[in-house]
Parts: sequence; structure tokens; C-alpha cells
Amino acid sequence: MTAKESLPRVVIVGGGFGGLQLARALDGKPVRVTLVDRENHHLFQPLLYQVATAGLGPSSIAVPIRAVLGDQKNTEVILGEAWEHDPATRELVLRDGERLAYDKLVIAAGAKTNYFGHEADWAPHAHGLKDLRDAIRIRERVLLAFEAAEREPDPEVRARLMTFVVIGGGPTGVEMAGAISELGRMVLAGDYRRIHPNDIRVVLVEMAPRVLTPFSEELSHDAAIMLKELGVELHLGQRVKQVTEGAVHFEGEKPLEASVIVWASGVKPVSLAERLGVTLDDRGRICVDEHCAVLGHPEIFAVGDIARFVPEGSEQPLPGLAPVAMQQGRHVARQILRDLKRQPREPFRYVDKGQMATIGRARAVAEAKGMKLEGLMAWFAWLFIHILYLVGFRNRATVLFDWFWQYVTFGRGSRLITARHDADDVRPSPLMASLPRTSTAPRSGEREAARPPAA
Amino acid sequence: MTAKESLPRVVIVGGGFGGLQLARALDGKPVRVTLVDRENHHLFQPLLYQVATAGLGPSSIAVPIRAVLGDQKNTEVILGEAWEHDPATRELVLRDGERLAYDKLVIAAGAKTNYFGHEADWAPHAHGLKDLRDAIRIRERVLLAFEAAEREPDPEVRARLMTFVVIGGGPTGVEMAGAISELGRMVLAGDYRRIHPNDIRVVLVEMAPRVLTPFSEELSHDAAIMLKELGVELHLGQRVKQVTEGAVHFEGEKPLEASVIVWASGVKPVSLAERLGVTLDDRGRICVDEHCAVLGHPEIFAVGDIARFVPEGSEQPLPGLAPVAMQQGRHVARQILRDLKRQPREPFRYVDKGQMATIGRARAVAEAKGMKLEGLMAWFAWLFIHILYLVGFRNRATVLFDWFWQYVTFGRGSRLITARHDADDVRPSPLMASLPRTSTAPRSGEREAARPPAA
Repeated sequence: MTAKESLPRVVIVGGGFGGLQLARALDGKPVRVTLVDRENHHLFQPLLYQVATAGLGPSSIAVPIRAVLGDQKNTEVILGEAWEHDPATRELVLRDGERLAYDKLVIAAGAKTNYFGHEADWAPHAHGLKDLRDAIRIRERVLLAFEAAEREPDPEVRARLMTFVVIGGGPTGVEMAGAISELGRMVLAGDYRRIHPNDIRVVLVEMAPRVLTPFSEELSHDAAIMLKELGVELHLGQRVKQVTEGAVHFEGEKPLEASVIVWASGVKPVSLAERLGVTLDDRGRICVDEHCAVLGHPEIFAVGDIARFVPEGSEQPLPGLAPVAMQQGRHVARQILRDLKRQPREPFRYVDKGQMATIGRARAVAEAKGMKLEGLMAWFAWLFIHILYLVGFRNRATVLFDWFWQYVTFGRGSRLITARHDADDVRPSPLMASLPRTSTAPRSGEREAARPPAA
Repeated sequence: MTAKESLPRVVIVGGGFGGLQLARALDGKPVRVTLVDRENHHLFQPLLYQVATAGLGPSSIAVPIRAVLGDQKNTEVILGEAWEHDPATRELVLRDGERLAYDKLVIAAGAKTNYFGHEADWAPHAHGLKDLRDAIRIRERVLLAFEAAEREPDPEVRARLMTFVVIGGGPTGVEMAGAISELGRMVLAGDYRRIHPNDIRVVLVEMAPRVLTPFSEELSHDAAIMLKELGVELHLGQRVKQVTEGAVHFEGEKPLEASVIVWASGVKPVSLAERLGVTLDDRGRICVDEHCAVLGHPEIFAVGDIARFVPEGSEQPLPGLAPVAMQQGRHVARQILRDLKRQPREPFRYVDKGQMATIGRARAVAEAKGMKLEGLMAWFAWLFIHILYLVGFRNRATVLFDWFWQYVTFGRGSRLITARHDADDVRPSPLMASLPRTSTAPRSGEREAARPPAA
């Protein structure tokens, strides 16, 4: 056994904000790090809605994990899916059966779209937005709806094709609704001959009586005004009863027909959490102690969206935000190194740097430590912080260039539809099969939703 | 009937080099132009291999047709597939049944990958490279092969995973082989812990005894040396007998096993040509007269790869190159305007500006009017000309930035795999089903090829 092989093994599941910060914090330290992710790229999720609305290309917000960690000699990256773990042998088992022995295991696998029990029946009709596939699919659906509307002679069908519904009034939903409305009204409408900007209808559905509930009422009110300025219709205090192909159903109301329905209503931990055999909370998150260690498993940590961390003196667990995951990742790196030096672990303290949401081009709301910003200044703050956060210089520069260019010209360089098929294509296209059909009535749902979602 | 509605209607099928040049040349002229394409974007096909090898993102080489023609008031764009035409009523019929009346029809629908009668049995195993879907699929296959090799303990299986075969030694094949080898040796190898640059094997298969047969023997020889410098193995004078999953078969030789097989061996007109009921040559191209008009149909023109144009005094039809299509597109625009003024048509004369091919980073061959260039100077000429050609400023600047950055850092910003699926993904992934399986023997083909390809 060489010196290198005797070093403690740290296995990290997930190359998101938490996992990547953790891995980088272990660069040059006396540990062997293995990072497992089922994607080959780290994704800057807060900008995913920009890809979904053709504002940025996928490679502007994603960077190969290997490219980030390539120079880090003590670290290897595995493209694979963590499936379960074997506490007896201290091994992480991948989906294909490979076993990775660990001394410390960190679960940073993140969250997925939560349909609140309606995964099977609603997910095909209401698109989640958690990865690049989701974003590219929404982008193509939106662009294809415009193409279909341009060719549709029936005004009623055209009105439906030009209706877009976003379910969920949190930051993602607000950002999506604002960006779709802007894409349609300011960018796309000019390219079409038969679509007028006023034909485009974007509806934001939220169960609570206001958007952006994590923000103060004042900023929430400002955001609502900005959304209306952008032409977004607010459908507040509405509980979604059922989602069918091309229609959102409410209690005691006419269904809302739309060409594209986006589901931005909530997330839940990825299914790995359930298979680990550890203590979960009622929302499926892994319960961790004050050091971010999994209850009853001091050698396993959990950080980010998959973890439930309740700060001392608080009743509320920390929210699923990038800064939480990043701070926890760095904290766990320090605790692992303290363990090696036989120093006692320190409790994790979250430093809240505030929150922000953008509403279209040059509009945003932000609040931090009682300070509130709205409008153009908040947008600049948002722009600055997001570009700062982006991993890797190349991405940062490209995003800056894309944004600047888009800001100046209202152009959208990423309006590509790539999933279509045609007579000369030997491959089947899963997308085309689910395209909105023109001139056929939308199917309406027959089954009742078993349980209303927390939209 | 308004004045505008009485203007002659020009319908263009295809927004490639020919169709787009034609449409732009008719800007502001007294005609109504309708451009039909089954893609929403114009594609800079000569750089498609860069997307396939993660050098450029898709949006760097594609621009929405609507964005190019959006300001052109007399022009509308339809996303749809031209299916046949009705000569009696002078209508183009789209696949969905819509009929577009025309006074002048221009067929500029281009070409597709030619498997020489083996579309059904070879296409699933040897990837063509004609559109963004093709390029993204090849990129993912190549990147996934590296990921699988990194995790593969069996050296024999790993050797197969690290073998890439390109069939066809024309410019596309040479560019692909060079770029895959460079991607593997210089960019990716450093990111992996278990893959050594020398493990990567790229084989270029060509039926002729030399690569780049359209070029002079001297440049062809130079190209072969540059390819070998990049580590590309040349397999010349070899006729492909059969392609099966993960293996290329030759007469009287061991099959060549590979994780990814790229088919760059030839193109043929898209299937629309067959359905038009016009005179085709033995390769399926539409025969046109000296004005680029379809034989027997003076109101229909055909330009670019779908047309067979034989220059006066020559026996050889013009090759399928972007400059041919662009010059023909502009020529047909002039003839349509001359028709309106009742002036006689002029014959088309192709101005040959030479040809070039690139072999990896900073290597190329070029020849024009007896002048020959090779190496770095040819590469700069190639870079300059390609950037000049790109449609739309944004794309030009992004490509320049991407290239410059890649040149300086050897980085690849576009190494994204987006088609994978996982346990939390409710959608099926067509790509995963066809991934190279590790640790299973490749299937070998049982059927004999009916006819050898012109590789």
C-alpha cells in the first residue's frame, strides 16, 4: 500500500453547488476524493429559466465537472448514479453495481421537481425545470407553439397556442413567467407575420394570495406590478386540481387551456434519499445535526437541497438555495479535515446574504438584511452576483457577452429547435409525438386529482 | 385585391446557403417571398463537426431563419416540410396538407447522409453528420465513451471504448477524424485519471488510396501527414462490407471494433426530390438547365446540393459546396427579377474560389486557382473565411470568442451530455438504450451487405 492509497477516502455524491464547493475545498488536502454525478456537468440552476426562454445557450450555464476538477490531483470524477449505501462495509453502491469504499460520505445529490403525488399523471403535461433537458424541452415547446400559431387560421386555436401557463409563484415561476412574456412580446413577435404581441398570454398561477412568498409583502407587491407591466396575468389564491394535456383545471372554474404548462411549484429530494436508510423528515429530506452530519451516522454528511438543517434557535429548516449548499459544502470540508486532525467538529452557521428574483429584462427585486432593492438597481445587483457565481472564466465571459448582446439588441441567439423529425430522418422523435396539435380540441382530464398540490 | 396581394409569389424550399441567399437577394423587390424549412434555423454546415467534437455550441453555428429574415417585409417564413407539388395548380403541398400557391418555386432543400442502400441497417450504427441532432448525438456518444472507459477495468473493453472510426476520407471525414483525435488527446485525456492520450485510437477509413480526393495529390499527401501527426490511423483503399453495432467489417480482414462510428461517406438529395415528379440524375439530383431551371419547368428552379448543374463545356456536375449553392441562389433571384421585367434569362457561371479542409487545431490544407496552402497559414485562411461566412454578427463574435478561447486554453466549453436519463427522470431516453455497453462483447453482423458503399 502506497502512501497515497492509505489516505482517507471521501466520496461525494453530486456535483451541484454543495458538492463542487466541497470537492474544491479539499484540493491539495491529505484525502482521496471521488465525486459521483449522474450528469457530466455542473449546472448553474438559477439561470436555467434563461435557457428555457432562449436567452442563453446550454453551455453558458453548465460546465463539465471534469473541467472544474481536472487539475485537482487528489480528486477523481465518476459519471454514474449513486443508488444505495452499505453501512456495514462503508461502501457507496452505484446503480450499475460498482462499489466505492469511503471513510467519509457526503450526500449532495439535490432535489427534483415535486408534483406532490402526481408524478405519473401530471409530469407529462406540466414541464418541470431542474436540468438542461427540461430547459431545452420547454424552449422547444414554446418556440414550436409560436410556429404553429403563425400557421393557424382558427383564432380560437391560435389563442390557445399563444397561452403559456406557469404554475408556482416562487422565484423560478416569477422568472419563467416574466421571461416567457418578454420573449414573446419583445423578441419573437417581430419575427412573425400573423402574431401580434398582444396575442400572447402568460398566466402565473399561485396558490398563495401573493407571489414570492419568501419575500416581504412590499417586494412581493412590487414584483406583481412588474409582472403586470410585462403583460403577465396573475392567477393568485388558486389551487390546481388537475393538469391534463394542454389544460390546467381549478375547483369551480373553467380550465385554463395553454400550449405550454411549466411546473415551478416545488421540489423534493432525489429518490436516492429514500434508499439510504437514514432518517428523513416529512418532505423526504435527510435530517442532519448541527455539523451537517446525518443523524446516527457521523461518517456521513448531507448538504444542500437534500438535507434538512434546522439552525439553532430556529424552528424553520434552511431553504433550498445555492448559498446554503455552498456554505454547507465548505463547512463539511472543514469538518472532514478537523476529523483527520482529531479536532472536535464545529456547528454550521448559515450567513444569509439575502435573496433576489428577476422579472424580465432590467427588472428585479432583492432583499438582504432588511435592505430592499427593486427595479433596475436590483437587476444590476442580480446580474453582477450571478455572473460572479458562475464557475469557470469562459462561462462567465460568454454569459456576459450573451447578456450584453441580448440587452442591446433584444436578440435571442439561442432560439434553436433541434428535436424535430422529418421524412428524411430515420430516428423517431419523442418530442414531436407530444407536440400541441393544431385544429384538434384539447383533451380534458377525466380523473380527479387525489390530492391538491401546494401550488 | 390589394397591390401587395397581386405581387408574384416566390416560394423557396429550404433555408440553407442557397435558399437564404436567394431570399435575401429578393429583399425589397416586388415579389412576395415564402421560405419553407423543416428546421427553424439556418445551419452553418461546414462547422458541424466542431459541434460534434465539443469545440462549439450548437447556437454558435446556427441562427433562427426568422431572425435573419425578420426585417424583410416582403418575406414570410414557415416551419414545415415541403412534401410534393401540384403542377396543375402551381401549388407546393406541405406534409400536413397546407398548399402554398406559387408563381416561381425554388427547390433548395439540400442533401442528407447517403448510406448507399443501407439506410435501414447501417444508419443506427454509423452516425451521419448533417444536422444539429446528428452533431449533438455524436458529441454525446464520444463523451460517454470516455466516461465508460474511465470506469472500465478490462483493458480489452477499454481499448474498444477508446476506438473511434470515421468512414469517408473527404473534407468532413478528415475534419471529424482530426478533431476527435485532438479532443481525446489534448483536451479530454487530462481530465481523466485512467485514460492515457496514447490509449485513444482514431481510424479514418477511405475506399480510395488517398484522403481528400477532390484535392491535388500534393495536398492530399500533406493532409495525410498532418492526420498522422495528430495520431489518426489511415485505413486507405478499404471497402466497407458491413457496419454493425460497434464494428466496421471489411473483406478478408478482422472487423474494426469501435465505440463510435461516424459515417462521412457521402450525401444524396433529400427525399423531396423523388416526390416532385421531375427529371433526376442517377444520384437522385434534380437536373437543371443553364439558368438553374428544372428541365421542362421554367417556373421551377433548383439550387445547391439537390440540383445537378453541369457547366457549359464540362462533363462534371458542380460539387455540393456552400459557395455553389450561394452563387446559384443569388443567380436565381436575378433570373426571377429578369422574368418579371420580361428580360431573357442569363446562364449561371460558377466562380470557383477554391476549397479547403482543416485538420485539427492550426492545421489545414487549401487550394484555389492553382495556389496551394498548407499548415498554419491555411488554417488562418480557413478560420478567416469561415467566420466571414457566418450569418449574423452575434454568431460571428461568439464563434470567434469560442475559438480564440479554445485556441489559447485547449479548453472545450461545450462538452455537455444532456440526453442521459436516471432514476429520477420520468422520461425515457432513446440515447441511453443505444449506449456502448461495457463488459459485453459487441454483436457482429450476420447479414451481408447487398452493395458496398463508396467509402
